[in-house]
Order: sequence, then C-alpha cells, then structure tokens
Amino acid sequence: MSGKQKEPVTREWQNQTLPEIESAELVAQSKLFKIEQIDLTFANGEKRIYERMKGSGRGAVMVVPCLNDDEMMLVREYAAGTHTYELGFPKGLIDAGETPEEAANRELKEEIGFGARRLTKLKTLLTAPTYSSAKMHIFIASDLYEASLPGDEPEPLEKEVWSWSAFQDLMEHPDFNESRSVSALLMAKSLLKK
Amino acid sequence: MSGKQKEPVTREWQNQTLPEIESAELVAQSKLFKIEQIDLTFANGEKRIYERMKGSGRGAVMVVPCLNDDEMMLVREYAAGTHTYELGFPKGLIDAGETPEEAANRELKEEIGFGARRLTKLKTLLTAPTYSSAKMHIFIASDLYEASLPGDEPEPLEKEVWSWSAFQDLMEHPDFNESRSVSALLMAKSLLKK
Repeated sequence: MSGKQKEPVTREWQNQTLPEIESAELVAQSKLFKIEQIDLTFANGEKRIYERMKGSGRGAVMVVPCLNDDEMMLVREYAAGTHTYELGFPKGLIDAGETPEEAANRELKEEIGFGARRLTKLKTLLTAPTYSSAKMHIFIASDLYEASLPGDEPEPLEKEVWSWSAFQDLMEHPDFNESRSVSALLMAKSLLKK
Repeated sequence: MSGKQKEPVTREWQNQTLPEIESAELVAQSKLFKIEQIDLTFANGEKRIYERMKGSGRGAVMVVPCLNDDEMMLVREYAAGTHTYELGFPKGLIDAGETPEEAANRELKEEIGFGARRLTKLKTLLTAPTYSSAKMHIFIASDLYEASLPGDEPEPLEKEVWSWSAFQDLMEHPDFNESRSVSALLMAKSLLKK
C-alpha cells in the first residue's frame, strides 16, 4: 500500500449530485426477478427512464478455497444463462439470518465438502450496478477441514484442484469466464503473493 | 506462462453432460429485459425449473485507457441498480454491425474524448452466467489521440486519472466495486507488469 496517495492524480469534477428518482413502478415480475422502471431527473435537468432489477438485497458469497500453500479447489457448475458448465469458485446466496462468513462456510461444506477455520475477506463486488444491486462478498478460505452439508444442487459439482503454477493456464481456460471468479483469483494471487 | 500444465492437478469427473432443456417459456418481459423459464432434466435424471434473462446477444465492451506508461483514465457514472455513482472503466453495449474493437473505440470517444491507435484484448468475461448470457470483452487501449463523439449519456461523465502507484488505493476506493472493472484493472496490471 502506498499510504500516501488516496486520490486520483486529477479529476474533472467533484461532488456529483445523484439524480432524483421521480417515480418507480414494477413493470415485470417472475418467480425470481422483479423489473422496476424508474423516472430520473439528473442534476442538469436531463430526464431519463431507466429499468433495473430489484434483488433480494441479501447478497451472495464466493470463496477461494486454499487446500495448502500451492493448491486451490474450483468447481464446474451448470450455468443456465449460458447453458454451459462454468469453472469457478464455490458461491451462493446468503440465507436469511446468516452472516457472509457463515454463508461462505456453508457453501464450502455443500459444494466441496470442506469447512474453513480461517476466512479472509478480499472485497465486496457489484455484479452489474448499471441495472442490478446484486453484490457478492469474496473470501479466501484456508485451514480447511473435511465437513459436508447437503446442498440444493441437482447434481454433485465436479471439483478441480489447481496449482498456482498453472495460474496462466487457468486464466486462459475456455470454461473460466465469470468476472467474479476472475476477480477473486486475481485478488487472491495478489494477497497471497503468488 | 508455464507452457506445460494445461490441466488441473486433479479433477473428480470428466465430460459432464449438459442437462436437457425440455421446454422454455417467456414468463416476464419489460422494455429491456426478457425472463425465460426453462424446464431442465440433468444427466442423473434430476429435474429443475430455472429462470434466466434473455439478452440481446450483442455483448458489451470495457476499456482500460492508458494515457502513458504510468496513468490510466477512469470514469464515474450513475448506476441505477445501486443508485450510486460508480468509479470504473469506460464501457457500453456493442452496436449492431460493430466489431468489439469498433465499439471499444466509439465508447472511448463518447465517454472520455479519446480514440485509441492500439487495442489489446485481455479476456471476454461473463457477468453472471447462472442466470444471464451477458458477456463483456475487455481491452487495454494505448497510443491514444484526442477525438470526441456525442454519446447518449444524460450528463458528461466525471473523468479521473489514476497512477499505477495508487493501485492499492484504487482497489480499496469505496466507489470502485464493479467486478468487471476490478477484473480489468487486475488483468491490465498483470499484462503491463505494474
């Protein structure tokens, strides 16, 4: 950490004023998704109509499970949005009443059969803030121990152990595409000095 | 690049078989979003009903604009999903008929008033493949020249110049949260050896 420079070198404006939400209306809804239309007036008087997804607000977690100094575990899970199996880190929604750390430990037990004695928070990421409030808390898990919980997955997840020496190959793997997994891998690499 | 190890150390299964999409139905629709419900049968016979967002399929671009060897430009843009101004890299949807590179150059001209003589592809990221097919092509832009195009933004974007020496401060900045911008920054750091 530099400890000195907390600001950009230059910035053109400061203190942007948030637009006013003049009205908000639910315009479409399914079991999982709610779409809201909002009428906005920006600080300069410009008006726009935007749409956004209303989430549960509970947030989600993703965990980089470190098996030892050199190896981490990834999972391959069916992704309905792309109809592909995607390689990435264990993840899931936070249940009601859970802390992010508790959710991280539960997801590890459900998806890869390990609990973690140590969770280190990396960052909270927004998925697509332009139209969604979805956020995901990213952790590194270490000091793992064997412990399983039944999950709600339709099939057991394929587990893959990757070495840090294969970092570049993982980055270029055709199944490793999800932005939040890429962010998690790169933040873990930086923190662990790999 | 290791050039040797292209596979994980161990993997538990291989050749996962994609579930069958038995039926698909549009269950909700707004101006921007279409929600589809799909009935799935997994290879082990388990059945599930999932929902997913049907996108335009056009994809989007994000660009890390390098002003010189030490500095890059970020923008602060209103994000309706979180009702905040988010700090990140210039981005936008690919227009009909555009290549990703053409879209990257157009977005740079619209959002920060520069064109790029050189675009280097970093990776194509998926945003949230569990329920969306949205993908974003990430580029580094260099050899910039002044060139503006009118955009469709309701207000000019605040531009911020950041030095690589302030990398850690940028990572910890409370407005720098979007996963795709975090991935882009970390991939650019790795490629540029910063």
